[in-house]
Amino acid sequence: MLVIGVDAGGTSTRAVLATGEGRVVGFGRGGSGNPTSSGIPAALAEVRGAVGMALDAGGASLSEVSGIVVAMAGHDARGGASDWILEPLKENGFAGALWFESDLLAMYASGAVAPVGYGVVCGTGASAVRVEGGRIVATADGLGWLLGDRGSGFWIGRAAAAAAVAELDGLGPETVLTARVLQAAGIAGEGVQGRGSDGRPVGLEQLIRVLYAQRPVQLAAFAPLVFDAADEHDPVAERILQEAGEQLAQTVELVQAAPGPVVVGGSIVSRPGAPQRLLRAHVAAAFGDQPFVLVDSGAAGATMLALRRAGLRVDERTLARVRAGIGEAMRARVPAADPAPHATIPRGDTP
Amino acid sequence: MLVIGVDAGGTSTRAVLATGEGRVVGFGRGGSGNPTSSGIPAALAEVRGAVGMALDAGGASLSEVSGIVVAMAGHDARGGASDWILEPLKENGFAGALWFESDLLAMYASGAVAPVGYGVVCGTGASAVRVEGGRIVATADGLGWLLGDRGSGFWIGRAAAAAAVAELDGLGPETVLTARVLQAAGIAGEGVQGRGSDGRPVGLEQLIRVLYAQRPVQLAAFAPLVFDAADEHDPVAERILQEAGEQLAQTVELVQAAPGPVVVGGSIVSRPGAPQRLLRAHVAAAFGDQPFVLVDSGAAGATMLALRRAGLRVDERTLARVRAGIGEAMRARVPAADPAPHATIPRGDTP
Repeated sequence: MLVIGVDAGGTSTRAVLATGEGRVVGFGRGGSGNPTSSGIPAALAEVRGAVGMALDAGGASLSEVSGIVVAMAGHDARGGASDWILEPLKENGFAGALWFESDLLAMYASGAVAPVGYGVVCGTGASAVRVEGGRIVATADGLGWLLGDRGSGFWIGRAAAAAAVAELDGLGPETVLTARVLQAAGIAGEGVQGRGSDGRPVGLEQLIRVLYAQRPVQLAAFAPLVFDAADEHDPVAERILQEAGEQLAQTVELVQAAPGPVVVGGSIVSRPGAPQRLLRAHVAAAFGDQPFVLVDSGAAGATMLALRRAGLRVDERTLARVRAGIGEAMRARVPAADPAPHATIPRGDTP
Repeated sequence: MLVIGVDAGGTSTRAVLATGEGRVVGFGRGGSGNPTSSGIPAALAEVRGAVGMALDAGGASLSEVSGIVVAMAGHDARGGASDWILEPLKENGFAGALWFESDLLAMYASGAVAPVGYGVVCGTGASAVRVEGGRIVATADGLGWLLGDRGSGFWIGRAAAAAAVAELDGLGPETVLTARVLQAAGIAGEGVQGRGSDGRPVGLEQLIRVLYAQRPVQLAAFAPLVFDAADEHDPVAERILQEAGEQLAQTVELVQAAPGPVVVGGSIVSRPGAPQRLLRAHVAAAFGDQPFVLVDSGAAGATMLALRRAGLRVDERTLARVRAGIGEAMRARVPAADPAPHATIPRGDTP
């Protein structure tokens, strides 16, 4: 018996082919598999590519697969319609069952098998969920860059841009972020120091023009500048991360009830580094002394959900086996150090 | 000798035909005259329409006009290029001079003739300027909805939406804003009270969908809800306006130097009502006991700048004459009460 778990994210897709015992026999990757981010044809191509790669690696065919779970954000937005992905699979011999699951549930299931527990994601967006009976019963934040995603990568990156703009405008304190934001925005060199019309610094005018020409969510790209500056003890950067941690803790508190394991993922909190540890410490403090697991994607969880959906009993050992198998497959595929293995539990820019 | 002052805003355009003594002999209106907001052909049509209307009212032709000032936001963004507006005027017999001026300078000149003073605009956006020698020498904020415009109509409207979203998500306190934001967004009736997938209130899911489907700057439309709620002493609305006032005061403090008159305009601060008075009180407090003038547009100022550019001496009496003339012309054109005479010193959604 074989199942496939697919973690279809806004930036990358991972597919895992596993036996009923959770032994990983194939692994595949692709680009954005989320139709909300990239449209149905492109998303389908990436999901099929990743699934095909996993099947090839395992020397198996779709007809041997009993069940597939596809985990993605907004999985319920289209009323659960799955034809866009099910029909092409059927045409290629798939005769099993297909289920959509929440990417947040898959993320949780990547780190815990307990039926009651918590998931916290902090990547471009930020949200927290409570899981009961293997289902999400409460969600907090994840409300998008304009109205929520407090403490997220977008939130931190926007704060960096706002700090730079405030210093240039004379409103905010001096910070190393200003020069780095200008540089990251491609603004540097002669003339930036001067004053333009209406007494406004030239660098500020240029920065505003660049930042408004891009999509707002792209401000998330400045988040790493804040981590670096906080590592160098820049007070403005330290305050941004302090506030981000407090916001994340508030989000966490919204879903808290009975004790349970806490699974944390997303590019902002799961990367190594002292500032990221600070953010995680805020989340951990909000949960008290409950067990705390860091995960780098929802791939293992999607596989666990597929095993469960297929009617199989899963436990901690199954999860350990799936995670170890994915780790081995990733090391086998990427001989050199993977530059950012923790980088993506991608979130769309709107919820 | 005749001059024309044009206040070309993002929502409406006003043109004033005046004699060298500041006697208003014609007045015209149009829609958005700002090419950044609506494109050159549309902006040109509105400016020409307003100018034509003013000339008709005064029984004059373009050939009799010595000078025209067009005041608009971003007037210097295209390096002062004026052909798009000058050439069509020349084709219609204009033989005088055309000058572009900052909309903020025109706003200031609508309320004061002193060469040193301050202008504060709070409409959809928010900014403050210091004027010296009849020129803007310092500008604060006006940095757009994403990174600045602190205390502006957008800022207040976004805060209303965020308060509603926070209450629905369980994070924020109860506020009358929640029901009113839902209603204004067209979300009401059966089913809104229930919980959808993932334990999320249905109303919240719908609100998020509606708000992300529109342009961010449209959140400014919620600002009047905050004024109404504050009038009814809703604590959340009162706190939003308190903070908005503090932000405006900070912006003001950035440009402050020598004493001078303070001219305040923009839909958010110039409307009647107790909450608007609160915002003005913050601005007034930041300026101490300096004289404080409310203006409803930059039309009088554009006319004053045109007279000055044409080499004429202007003083307080000239300004009083221009303002009185515009007031009469507006009353004559609008027999019933003008629904929102103070409503527009429009600002684009990006600076």
